[in-house]
Amino acid sequence: MTPKLIIADSEKDSNMFYAAGILIPDDFVYLEKNGRKTIYIDDLEYNRAKKEAKVDSVVNYSKYIKGINRDTFGKILINILKDNRIKKVTVPGNFKMKYAKILMDNKIKIEVVEPFFKKREFKNKNEIKKITEVQGVNERTLQVAINIIGKSKIRKDKKLSYQNKILTSEFIKEVIDVEFLKGGCFSEFDIVSCGKDSSDPHNFGTGPLFANQLIVIDIFPRSKTTKYFSDMTRTIVKGKASPEMKKMYDAVLGAQKLALGKIKAGVRADLIHKKVQDYFENKRFKTGEKDGKIQGFFHGTGHGVGLDIHELPNISLGNKKPLKISNVVTVEPGLYYPEIGGVRIEDLVVVTKSGCKNLTKFPKFLEIK
Amino acid sequence: MTPKLIIADSEKDSNMFYAAGILIPDDFVYLEKNGRKTIYIDDLEYNRAKKEAKVDSVVNYSKYIKGINRDTFGKILINILKDNRIKKVTVPGNFKMKYAKILMDNKIKIEVVEPFFKKREFKNKNEIKKITEVQGVNERTLQVAINIIGKSKIRKDKKLSYQNKILTSEFIKEVIDVEFLKGGCFSEFDIVSCGKDSSDPHNFGTGPLFANQLIVIDIFPRSKTTKYFSDMTRTIVKGKASPEMKKMYDAVLGAQKLALGKIKAGVRADLIHKKVQDYFENKRFKTGEKDGKIQGFFHGTGHGVGLDIHELPNISLGNKKPLKISNVVTVEPGLYYPEIGGVRIEDLVVVTKSGCKNLTKFPKFLEIK
Repeated sequence: MTPKLIIADSEKDSNMFYAAGILIPDDFVYLEKNGRKTIYIDDLEYNRAKKEAKVDSVVNYSKYIKGINRDTFGKILINILKDNRIKKVTVPGNFKMKYAKILMDNKIKIEVVEPFFKKREFKNKNEIKKITEVQGVNERTLQVAINIIGKSKIRKDKKLSYQNKILTSEFIKEVIDVEFLKGGCFSEFDIVSCGKDSSDPHNFGTGPLFANQLIVIDIFPRSKTTKYFSDMTRTIVKGKASPEMKKMYDAVLGAQKLALGKIKAGVRADLIHKKVQDYFENKRFKTGEKDGKIQGFFHGTGHGVGLDIHELPNISLGNKKPLKISNVVTVEPGLYYPEIGGVRIEDLVVVTKSGCKNLTKFPKFLEIK
Repeated sequence: MTPKLIIADSEKDSNMFYAAGILIPDDFVYLEKNGRKTIYIDDLEYNRAKKEAKVDSVVNYSKYIKGINRDTFGKILINILKDNRIKKVTVPGNFKMKYAKILMDNKIKIEVVEPFFKKREFKNKNEIKKITEVQGVNERTLQVAINIIGKSKIRKDKKLSYQNKILTSEFIKEVIDVEFLKGGCFSEFDIVSCGKDSSDPHNFGTGPLFANQLIVIDIFPRSKTTKYFSDMTRTIVKGKASPEMKKMYDAVLGAQKLALGKIKAGVRADLIHKKVQDYFENKRFKTGEKDGKIQGFFHGTGHGVGLDIHELPNISLGNKKPLKISNVVTVEPGLYYPEIGGVRIEDLVVVTKSGCKNLTKFPKFLEIK
């Protein structure tokens, strides 16, 4: 087995966190040789790493060079590899060019391997428990947000008001973030988009929420401690949905049911996505560019969720491989038309031998009074 | 000028956010040729990018290939470069190997340039305003945290209690996070470490807070909207500090004053750090390994702050270049001894022609009653 090399921080880089099991904000070195895992690190993190890191050994950079500084990192790296008699390494796809250059300049061969840790695609019981915990926080949070929209009043100008203030996307997002914190989670972004904004799948939403308009709430907290994500979307209308909105909602719900029914170990991911596309086409929901805007269903049906919010496997045209037992994936068809708005419904499921187990218990409904 | 190429998401990658001015969670392509800035993107983000991105033009991947998927990204990338008649690109140091491989396989030359956007080291008025705003939130937040510690009671076992509950690091961090949110900021991590924990500079802290022990509070919120960070540390003791703690605190305060006095445009960063090291040595605060643990002063004196919490320039032995006007850097000497704990005091300053402007107004004191 070619030795595995990662050089990254473990706060942003999930492979490094998966490998080292400790959160460190600056780049450090992880080397796995014959199954033995070592991290190499500077003075600042050395004591903590020795206590917390889930590796076989922790080595201080000072073993390799005196007077450490950023200019000397290249020397340290080469000394580490020499010391281990390594002439070839495998690295993850996101391995940084500045480090690759040091290796290439020193005749160390590099093989890019993606996915780097195949196991990350297959969640064990402990990981599913962690994801389920975050999903619990996510559902309690969504309930709080929806309760507020439920209690809000409809003004004459159709804006919603809550506690005598105009109810905004920003207010709901702050409520969501506070609930996440109470549950030991956080989120850098939340989507609470209304009306035309919701016709852009990744528009975070701003300004007043309106009655009788589609409101997409897509929230994806991350545990502060376990670092696992969950991901869920619901679409609601406060007041009355138009017949067009109802038709869109029913189509998306139908598409999701279809996809949920197709998912099981051994089924090719791209074919599930194709089925969803066909379903929308058959229902006359067209996808394509119109007036310079992409409309219809123009994102994947789903993606893996774990230490990254978007990870393998995807349920999209690009993934021609079969789903496998213990994949954790979202199932989130959506339809988007600028004149009406967007509808997306997203659950998180574990792929099983015979189908899938839905980790999302939150009810699905369009209108709230 | 060789064209600039970035392929990254803009949520984690600050160069990409700096270049494109829009938050996008998945990798996309930024190309700058003869000063003209273009981003290339998939259907999912296309509408939003056209509205929000701060570039000259936004091109849909579908211009280059039909039936987009992850397998075809390589073809899209090569077609983009062919279309622009580009045979050589400059890329940032963190450019991903998986993309570099595509370029190399197609005989496109790659030059790694670091720093990629030199301007990021020099903050303009607008950026300093944004950082100052975040620092305002940071100081209001720290005041709330310190007020709670101030109001807490000292139990017989020396644990602090607040509102009849044992006061913990976790509780204070939740308070901090909620205050950040109220100010439109967030933080993935906060350090509130007490006693022995505080002798590890990056120990986040857990469990009860104790009277008569050093408590290090190091907080670094990021604006949810502007994405700029601030960074500040204070060290306090609830109750009575021991003479050793006081000596350490005075030394760190003295070292910070020394560094703040030395900082000005034209002064070499490593020499400032060296002065701080010498100052501690002269005061008989030794640095080095003892009983298998690094002790004393073993991190840099400071680092740049902006769209990244750790960015250039560093004030450390590795940076032999002079500081320049409009650098924004932390000044944060610290001392750490396992038997006593840690002391760190951190301000954020703008380098000026004649010295520096301190953006941190928060008072410095050790004991609170």
